[in-house]
Amino acid sequence: MERNTHQLFDAYFMQADMRLIFSDAGRMQGMLDFEAALARAEARCGVIPQSAVASIEAACRAELYDPVTLAQAIVSSGNSAIPLVKALGKRITAQDAEAEKYLHLGATSQDAMDTGLMLQLRQAMALLERDLSSLGEKLAAQAERHAATPMAGRTWLQHATPVTLGMKIAGWLGAINRHRQRLAEIKPRVLCLQFGGASGSLAALGKQAWPVSQALAAELELNLPDQPWHTQRDRLVEFASLLGMIAGSLGKLGRDLSLLMQTDVGEVFEPSAPGKGGSSTMPHKRNPVGSAVMISAATRAPGLVATMLSAMPQEHERSLGLWHAEWETLPELCCLVSGSLQQALQATAGLEFDADRMAGNLEQTRGLVLAEAVSIALAQRIGRDAAHHLVEQCCKRAVADGRHLRGVLGETAEVRQELTDAELDRLLDPVFYLGEAQRWVERAVAEHRSLY
Amino acid sequence: MERNTHQLFDAYFMQADMRLIFSDAGRMQGMLDFEAALARAEARCGVIPQSAVASIEAACRAELYDPVTLAQAIVSSGNSAIPLVKALGKRITAQDAEAEKYLHLGATSQDAMDTGLMLQLRQAMALLERDLSSLGEKLAAQAERHAATPMAGRTWLQHATPVTLGMKIAGWLGAINRHRQRLAEIKPRVLCLQFGGASGSLAALGKQAWPVSQALAAELELNLPDQPWHTQRDRLVEFASLLGMIAGSLGKLGRDLSLLMQTDVGEVFEPSAPGKGGSSTMPHKRNPVGSAVMISAATRAPGLVATMLSAMPQEHERSLGLWHAEWETLPELCCLVSGSLQQALQATAGLEFDADRMAGNLEQTRGLVLAEAVSIALAQRIGRDAAHHLVEQCCKRAVADGRHLRGVLGETAEVRQELTDAELDRLLDPVFYLGEAQRWVERAVAEHRSLY
Amino acid sequence: MERNTHQLFDAYFMQADMRLIFSDAGRMQGMLDFEAALARAEARCGVIPQSAVASIEAACRAELYDPVTLAQAIVSSGNSAIPLVKALGKRITAQDAEAEKYLHLGATSQDAMDTGLMLQLRQAMALLERDLSSLGEKLAAQAERHAATPMAGRTWLQHATPVTLGMKIAGWLGAINRHRQRLAEIKPRVLCLQFGGASGSLAALGKQAWPVSQALAAELELNLPDQPWHTQRDRLVEFASLLGMIAGSLGKLGRDLSLLMQTDVGEVFEPSAPGKGGSSTMPHKRNPVGSAVMISAATRAPGLVATMLSAMPQEHERSLGLWHAEWETLPELCCLVSGSLQQALQATAGLEFDADRMAGNLEQTRGLVLAEAVSIALAQRIGRDAAHHLVEQCCKRAVADGRHLRGVLGETAEVRQELTDAELDRLLDPVFYLGEAQRWVERAVAEHRSLY
Amino acid sequence: MERNTHQLFDAYFMQADMRLIFSDAGRMQGMLDFEAALARAEARCGVIPQSAVASIEAACRAELYDPVTLAQAIVSSGNSAIPLVKALGKRITAQDAEAEKYLHLGATSQDAMDTGLMLQLRQAMALLERDLSSLGEKLAAQAERHAATPMAGRTWLQHATPVTLGMKIAGWLGAINRHRQRLAEIKPRVLCLQFGGASGSLAALGKQAWPVSQALAAELELNLPDQPWHTQRDRLVEFASLLGMIAGSLGKLGRDLSLLMQTDVGEVFEPSAPGKGGSSTMPHKRNPVGSAVMISAATRAPGLVATMLSAMPQEHERSLGLWHAEWETLPELCCLVSGSLQQALQATAGLEFDADRMAGNLEQTRGLVLAEAVSIALAQRIGRDAAHHLVEQCCKRAVADGRHLRGVLGETAEVRQELTDAELDRLLDPVFYLGEAQRWVERAVAEHRSLY
Repeated sequence: MERNTHQLFDAYFMQADMRLIFSDAGRMQGMLDFEAALARAEARCGVIPQSAVASIEAACRAELYDPVTLAQAIVSSGNSAIPLVKALGKRITAQDAEAEKYLHLGATSQDAMDTGLMLQLRQAMALLERDLSSLGEKLAAQAERHAATPMAGRTWLQHATPVTLGMKIAGWLGAINRHRQRLAEIKPRVLCLQFGGASGSLAALGKQAWPVSQALAAELELNLPDQPWHTQRDRLVEFASLLGMIAGSLGKLGRDLSLLMQTDVGEVFEPSAPGKGGSSTMPHKRNPVGSAVMISAATRAPGLVATMLSAMPQEHERSLGLWHAEWETLPELCCLVSGSLQQALQATAGLEFDADRMAGNLEQTRGLVLAEAVSIALAQRIGRDAAHHLVEQCCKRAVADGRHLRGVLGETAEVRQELTDAELDRLLDPVFYLGEAQRWVERAVAEHRSLY
Repeated sequence: MERNTHQLFDAYFMQADMRLIFSDAGRMQGMLDFEAALARAEARCGVIPQSAVASIEAACRAELYDPVTLAQAIVSSGNSAIPLVKALGKRITAQDAEAEKYLHLGATSQDAMDTGLMLQLRQAMALLERDLSSLGEKLAAQAERHAATPMAGRTWLQHATPVTLGMKIAGWLGAINRHRQRLAEIKPRVLCLQFGGASGSLAALGKQAWPVSQALAAELELNLPDQPWHTQRDRLVEFASLLGMIAGSLGKLGRDLSLLMQTDVGEVFEPSAPGKGGSSTMPHKRNPVGSAVMISAATRAPGLVATMLSAMPQEHERSLGLWHAEWETLPELCCLVSGSLQQALQATAGLEFDADRMAGNLEQTRGLVLAEAVSIALAQRIGRDAAHHLVEQCCKRAVADGRHLRGVLGETAEVRQELTDAELDRLLDPVFYLGEAQRWVERAVAEHRSLY
Repeated sequence: MERNTHQLFDAYFMQADMRLIFSDAGRMQGMLDFEAALARAEARCGVIPQSAVASIEAACRAELYDPVTLAQAIVSSGNSAIPLVKALGKRITAQDAEAEKYLHLGATSQDAMDTGLMLQLRQAMALLERDLSSLGEKLAAQAERHAATPMAGRTWLQHATPVTLGMKIAGWLGAINRHRQRLAEIKPRVLCLQFGGASGSLAALGKQAWPVSQALAAELELNLPDQPWHTQRDRLVEFASLLGMIAGSLGKLGRDLSLLMQTDVGEVFEPSAPGKGGSSTMPHKRNPVGSAVMISAATRAPGLVATMLSAMPQEHERSLGLWHAEWETLPELCCLVSGSLQQALQATAGLEFDADRMAGNLEQTRGLVLAEAVSIALAQRIGRDAAHHLVEQCCKRAVADGRHLRGVLGETAEVRQELTDAELDRLLDPVFYLGEAQRWVERAVAEHRSLY
Repeated sequence: MERNTHQLFDAYFMQADMRLIFSDAGRMQGMLDFEAALARAEARCGVIPQSAVASIEAACRAELYDPVTLAQAIVSSGNSAIPLVKALGKRITAQDAEAEKYLHLGATSQDAMDTGLMLQLRQAMALLERDLSSLGEKLAAQAERHAATPMAGRTWLQHATPVTLGMKIAGWLGAINRHRQRLAEIKPRVLCLQFGGASGSLAALGKQAWPVSQALAAELELNLPDQPWHTQRDRLVEFASLLGMIAGSLGKLGRDLSLLMQTDVGEVFEPSAPGKGGSSTMPHKRNPVGSAVMISAATRAPGLVATMLSAMPQEHERSLGLWHAEWETLPELCCLVSGSLQQALQATAGLEFDADRMAGNLEQTRGLVLAEAVSIALAQRIGRDAAHHLVEQCCKRAVADGRHLRGVLGETAEVRQELTDAELDRLLDPVFYLGEAQRWVERAVAEHRSLY
């Protein structure tokens, strides 16, 4: 067993696919793909002989390089591309000394690192889109299923007028829909080639600089930006911000879920599984272990996004320190968000409900949550303030006497003057006071469907 | 003089127009505009009598309300809409007791606050777009003017191969272009109505809920979202993130500028003005007082964006505490970014240059910054590693002997075998090693122009 | 009415005394106190004539200066001390032209700003200590009062073994105790003179530099640090971190309180007051408006502390931008924490309880929260795993059948073999399973008392 | 080769010893040490038989457990202690089924995790103290060596009155001294036992709870806190804040160093080493690869400290999500700070200087940086404003004519009236205008020495 591993919480906090993208091998392969594509592009433009390409390409496989050796070399070089290109050169030389002359021509180490990162981010975005879309699907199904299931609305953590479970889920879905739109919008702007050479002018390639840039972007299927962006990092921060927002929306989902799972509420639950969420000391417990991950990611993401923002004022043509601050931060964000998504998917797919508890909780205020319905009905007859005041008095009396509001209302002359028993009964039935809940579900689901 | 003011740094750190948008009066007017529009919309839909509208509208002017009184009332109510609507109601009653009955019908306090905020954000976005566009214009002009002015490239704060001042400015411009694109993209998603009533279901409006929503959105010229978003705050965070990114890009501009203004560099300067940037003790100094604001905003923005992200997991139908955390944070971000923009505009408009110093600094390494040119030229003849090694040796000798690289190269047999004197002279002249600098300027300027 | 005020949320989010300390007048007075003390110190050391002191002192009153004029001048000067000293000089000249010569001698503007800040921070610390101590007192009283009142323990938001209300309050108190210890520890390190002159060497004062420094520190009753600290900001950050931690602990208090106030829980409440926490649409509601402030401050403080940390790497002898980033951030932190404390004090002083609800909620799991008691008792007889397994089975049966655990246990042979009815009754009574709750209260209260 | 490693930047960004402390094995051993000590403590108190201890202890070695298996189990359990204790129990059972009954008795999983963390933090603090002390030693030596070496003071990145290199280093040292004092102060408060059982009441241990707590603290040589602190996390945040501050101070060191290493400045350098800081394309470059790490850590730490602060409002007796957010954040902070310290140690130990460049740069403003000296001398004769104005005019003339200030002053009648040639010569020699530079060095070094 390797003593110095650091993966205890990986499976819980992060998704395996995403973690693989940002593994040492993933990072190296990103840079190696850049080097191979550069050789192809330069050969296509006649900058280097076509004969060199195969030898370069053959050596551009991450599994040929040892991350431990590379990690040591980074201590001296200050970045990962310098020693990797050196190792790559050595390997090529061993096979084809001539080809080595044409390696990395005109590029700077940050070109390899940034473009390599872009190739990783493309994979990361694909994973995110897959999972966001799948989460949207699951949420849409649940929202429709429970579109008409009344539950207590809760504002300021106090019971308010009723909502439906589907409407609450539609809220979660709406955010996911928007995140998918955002991802689609930013993708073409974010995913672009980095290729500028030493100071960003590509001077080393002379008149071939532009054709090579174009060919290289084509090879890698990345957009060709207006200019190199070694110290203009807004694209990366834009993606980081989106990741932060996704974490925030899932944090809200996890927060709602864990609040609904409270022993004191007991309305909705993460799916149970043998051994899941048990406690070492309390045999009866069922902890929201998925929500914990969502809340945790939402707590950690803001600091990481802030780091990416703080790292923006990079000096001159290439920065020291601020650039370095990005290297582990953006991957960490991707991985945490992937883990949060993974938990949201599991939680949503098998969401459990206790309809009796929902109905029971709705009655917990003995009708008070429907006071608004009565107030509104009265307002149109006796004025807003008078109605508000009258209902407030009835509510206070109901509270003071521990009685149901229906009873108090029924005994209050000013109320009876305006409303019949039947009207009162209907006003105090949550099912008749759900407003547009159904519409919100339909609209969110329609929006979801339109994204396919 | 009012003793308890807090505006000492406002003129320096913030733009006056933006600050006005988020003043107490601005906040109140936003909410009042919501209330007036709601009355019009509900009258249009027949929910309230048309006769009530004029009285309500007449009272919906911020100057009628005292922010100090309101501030005290907020302590009990926990938000600003409840006491404002109460004060509004009182004022209407005094004029037209009947009209008061139809005030705020079906709405919740957060509807007024959030929609009011949206109206403020629309103004803020217009200001931002105005200033970003103007900054783009100024940067484009400067980039073109200096497109061919060579200066030392600097990477890791070390001299690198030459760039041009125009190319550096084009980098700043490119970021501004992208921020304008982002602003245009997010505007329709961000600027939308908040209207949900107590728990977001609009139940209080019965069957008129949807028509009123549509009419209200139309009245306010805001988009009608898929559903209320009382606890789905991603739109606000999206805008906050963009503000953070703008701050970061301007921080980079300020950082570059202040580094170029160093006594030790002295190449580019903020415009001088009588008394500007003087020091109380050093009569000769000219401090980068504009850059200071840009760097300061870039230092403060990340924490504020993080706060907005941290506030996302808002509970259930309406949150306590997390919602409150937004109230001052987003305005502060808008104001800080406006101030940074204001300084960037001034600095860019009157940017000063010292061409002699630029040329002189380019020679500071005695030709070393053009070693790459030589290395590249040699690489194609003797191989990359050999060329790199040979030039490295010449550089070391030049450094050790305190001589110009040109001289050392000219005396080195292995070099002379491959390159003539004329070739060496040209290789060591920065003007011939500017690569695609001109193109980067053209592309950034063209992108800027396309945004009109 | 001044149109451009920004104080709508001040009374709610901040304490008036603290806000006054950091008002424009407070800032100016801090700098003016520095200038007056400097004159006295320099006169004492014979650097300036004693006769100049009175004229300088007479002009060092904040009410003599207009913050609006000053704010405009800051735009050019880049800090507040330069124009204030200029205005001060002008005023002195008008009275005593000779005295003006001796103003600000040997000092730099940052000396005035930083030392002025220290004088403000001393007042802020006194306010904090007053309020922390008072909060401690209130918490200690409540903890003792409710030391033996059982309530459901809640872990992962699930009911767990019982605790007491006093024990929960003792947890809040313990954090306050530690914050007071921290404040006492850091105060002497933080509160120190800033006096270095232009580059920090005090060269302008020649051989009198050190005696003047000593006299100045004595005049202001500030500690004399090992050296000027213009760009070593750890002292300020240390205080900011403590503020952040206080915000965090009060955020926990507010979180707990608002969770306990949930309609679904209803065990503990913020004190009620007429109109407090009402809703514009739901007449029955009682919103946790104090907790909202505590949670909001805990949400905003981390970003502000992060800003202070981000501003630490200040360049060389005096920084641009990073220093500026502190100016509004640290005061904002002080004010937010003061506001959170103010709400905690009010909430704690009048805390309300519903003992019946607490008892009722304890029974909500029908005995499951005491499963541990049974499990432990059994473990010692039949082994931990066996006991755990057995009790888990009983719990599952109780849940499945909707029965009380006591009943199920009483019917389970393996249990009956080990435990009598009386033993089971006692094991399932929360009052007998409160462990060290009383001790935790006593220890926290004793710690509190020891801090006087 | 394991494909999914993530250690590419570990050697560069983090110190190996620190990383080992927080490795999977380090984490597991922390928890296992808790379990073993608990067994010993409970045996000592007669809660479990002495005979069980040896079997339990024998199994409490991290190398017996597979972190990959554990990582998988955490997905279900939601924390690391539950599956580790389960695996531990299984292993003990295999050897001594009786002993297993007495494992983890009365503890909750968070007791094991938090106390285990404390044992790790104790090691981390020892490493930090070792490195801070060693860094102090190196800085003290360098400060003394260069106490009298003049260099340009730089404020707002502009040349200001001269300082000495030693004085600048003394500033770095002063911060390190204070961090060591802080570490010493917080250590006893931070390093304490976590032991509370399920809900923090230790009810499961009955009357033995307190004696066991005392014995356990003694076994582990941890302080016994006033009460369990499962959701009162201020101690951890206090340490995190200190880590953040250390990162900030080292960031300042790295910032200063990299600014001094600028090609345009060239005064002070990180030690050179073969291949260190070279560039793949610019053979002459010597990048500040150590400073990059220090700046990077200072950029990343604020976000991580903010996360720890954001995670403070943990609910009730044990939190979900917020607690989880700490697990990787605090270790990451420790590791980043250790890496920054490692680089600071290397950079400081072999710091290189270019005295000629320092002297040359001091002359770069042609005497302007000593204008203050002249201004002060004149002020005492002709008044501050007049002197300031006169010198300002001379400075402007010197700048306009590209001449040395000494020449201009010597030709200015108003100056000659007051100052002789000899006086002017001396006033313009930096060596005579170093003020208290020497004293600042002595005081910082003395403070350092007093910390042994």
